[in-house]
Amino acid sequence: MNYKKPFTPEEYARRLAETKSRMVAADFDLLICQDPANMGWLTGFDGWSFYVPQAVLVHVDGATPLWFGREQDAKAATITTDISPENIIGFSEPLIHHVTNHPNDELAELIRTRGWDRCRIGVEMDAHYYTARAHEHLSKGLPSAQIADSKELVNWARLVKSDVELAYMRDAGTICTATMQRALDKIAPGVPQYEVIAEIYHAQIMGVEGKFGDYTSLCPLIQVGEGTSTPHLTWTDEPLPHDTLIMMEIGAAHRHYHAPLTRTIHLGKPPTAVADLAKVIVEGVDVALDMARPGVSCEEVEAAWQKILNKNGYKKESRVGYSIGLNYPPDWGERTASLRPGDKTELQPGMCFHFQSGVWLEDYGAAVSEPFIVTETGGERLCDAPRELIIID
Amino acid sequence: MNYKKPFTPEEYARRLAETKSRMVAADFDLLICQDPANMGWLTGFDGWSFYVPQAVLVHVDGATPLWFGREQDAKAATITTDISPENIIGFSEPLIHHVTNHPNDELAELIRTRGWDRCRIGVEMDAHYYTARAHEHLSKGLPSAQIADSKELVNWARLVKSDVELAYMRDAGTICTATMQRALDKIAPGVPQYEVIAEIYHAQIMGVEGKFGDYTSLCPLIQVGEGTSTPHLTWTDEPLPHDTLIMMEIGAAHRHYHAPLTRTIHLGKPPTAVADLAKVIVEGVDVALDMARPGVSCEEVEAAWQKILNKNGYKKESRVGYSIGLNYPPDWGERTASLRPGDKTELQPGMCFHFQSGVWLEDYGAAVSEPFIVTETGGERLCDAPRELIIID
Repeated sequence: MNYKKPFTPEEYARRLAETKSRMVAADFDLLICQDPANMGWLTGFDGWSFYVPQAVLVHVDGATPLWFGREQDAKAATITTDISPENIIGFSEPLIHHVTNHPNDELAELIRTRGWDRCRIGVEMDAHYYTARAHEHLSKGLPSAQIADSKELVNWARLVKSDVELAYMRDAGTICTATMQRALDKIAPGVPQYEVIAEIYHAQIMGVEGKFGDYTSLCPLIQVGEGTSTPHLTWTDEPLPHDTLIMMEIGAAHRHYHAPLTRTIHLGKPPTAVADLAKVIVEGVDVALDMARPGVSCEEVEAAWQKILNKNGYKKESRVGYSIGLNYPPDWGERTASLRPGDKTELQPGMCFHFQSGVWLEDYGAAVSEPFIVTETGGERLCDAPRELIIID
Repeated sequence: MNYKKPFTPEEYARRLAETKSRMVAADFDLLICQDPANMGWLTGFDGWSFYVPQAVLVHVDGATPLWFGREQDAKAATITTDISPENIIGFSEPLIHHVTNHPNDELAELIRTRGWDRCRIGVEMDAHYYTARAHEHLSKGLPSAQIADSKELVNWARLVKSDVELAYMRDAGTICTATMQRALDKIAPGVPQYEVIAEIYHAQIMGVEGKFGDYTSLCPLIQVGEGTSTPHLTWTDEPLPHDTLIMMEIGAAHRHYHAPLTRTIHLGKPPTAVADLAKVIVEGVDVALDMARPGVSCEEVEAAWQKILNKNGYKKESRVGYSIGLNYPPDWGERTASLRPGDKTELQPGMCFHFQSGVWLEDYGAAVSEPFIVTETGGERLCDAPRELIIID
């Protein structure tokens, strides 16, 4: 089948070697990855099948990873990965939503069959789709194994991006810029919220200059009026009022690499308080992105931002950024480095972050965020959207 | 804020009473629901915040449920639910992706504070976002509680829909019909796959006759050529070839109630084998939907379908349908009743299913699915799309 894999076999080999080296350091013989982004990063596996149990297995002595999943999705592994047929293992269909049995009973059996049942096994205890029940069945099926939390081992390996990954990140940024512009072109008093969202989805997928868009890990978010005081509401059919505040957080993805972006819009002349907040936020982002150079820590970047806020009488409790890259729903964050107090991760060239500068106050909020790549000269912005409180009359 | 709640307080009260009665039967004092659909069904809570731990708590003696979640999302609970402020509890921001601590440490603390730490507590062991780590932290924080799997208690309570819910299901069906038509209008040789998907997204959200669309629990799925032998691939930038087989599974959602639909298309004259398979599938769906009346069991519906297949030399291993309704990513299935051997659930009026008649063979497949409501006279189709192998020249 004519399927264009996003990376060369050499890049997957490099990732596998990197993962194995981290496994050795963490005392794991076998790693079970259920996080769809980890599965994809390790093998290229791609498909919307993460709503049922599935995993990529890496043994520290294995030449290639194994794919385990639903029988009907095994063909998707054949098409999207280079894994050899004997290492693509489908589980039996009756296990889907079964009252007493579970697909991980067969995963445990597979591990026993391969002679790995006394291994030190790392599992992704906090991956979104690794449920408590999945863990219970795996543990019961492997009583002699030493099972422990892998603590986002592969997620951390994903933190610094390769050049090809950075190219995809920049493509996502270009698509996101165009998508935000299309939303801004649509926004006007009287337009129902969902009509703006329909334009966003269309632009996200159409992409730019022949680079198409994938589905994004979060849906487009829009908040209007008092709704701007909380970040994760979705659209309604209410027409946009005259004289109101709007916050939009959208993303774009290419080959599942993400660039998210938030902008704040005022229909009509904005209240001074909102305009002032937005101005401080923009200044804070500029200062922080200038700081975002190799050797600087995540918490130092946050401190630079928070200092600008504090100087102007504001503060932000929530983290101001998180690493981004390859991802699948429900989150485009990588669950590793965060720009916040206490995070001493040192920035390196090729790390990517979403600087999420949202400040949500009692009755309103504002955000002017930027996705960026860490470079020697500071954060390289992935998007090129107006950096200000956007006023639409 | 001008937020239109999808249901009356009376409907939520009825759902709460139904849930409590099931809790009594299952010997639970307290139920912790992390499944976003269960949270929404119980309280109306709505927002894309399910990528962090959050829950709705129901105590069997409590007048109203509690909402627990991230501090910045508490305002979304205030806006979208009728829960009183003292029962909306935000957890501390530093717990997000913390190496040693977890939001469920504070959830356990909340439960202790309310004096519920010796309760029999039901948790959703297999809900997509209830991770192994979340369960570990909750269990450690409540050493005196009896914690057990609630076994989809609320999901089962959702199985029979109310009239208002059925109205939303029909709205979703209408939107899905229009969306499929828009996709069919776009499909032609030479059109890149993603351009079809962009049209689908736009149509899904624009809705029909003033009924807007919400995001769907699965993204639109498209498989082309050999890809039709597996169901969950997503789009690429490949132009649709002349003379090829295409399968599309799409959905539409209104107020998060879903109607999914699958159609099979051939560009150019179809091979006899494909045309024959599609014809058998359509016949099987007709027979099964006629069977889908109150009192008939799920497995009897499946048997009627399988009989038509077998008679024609085919068989389908995977379940042929599952209950649908209110849902959030990553799945529009309710994880309860399935149309498959062994499922003795008796159909009742107001249950809704996706009859997913996909047959995936070695090198190709076909599917002509139907979402339907169980009625006294058989399955009422939610969509009205051509029921045949669709040929586009």
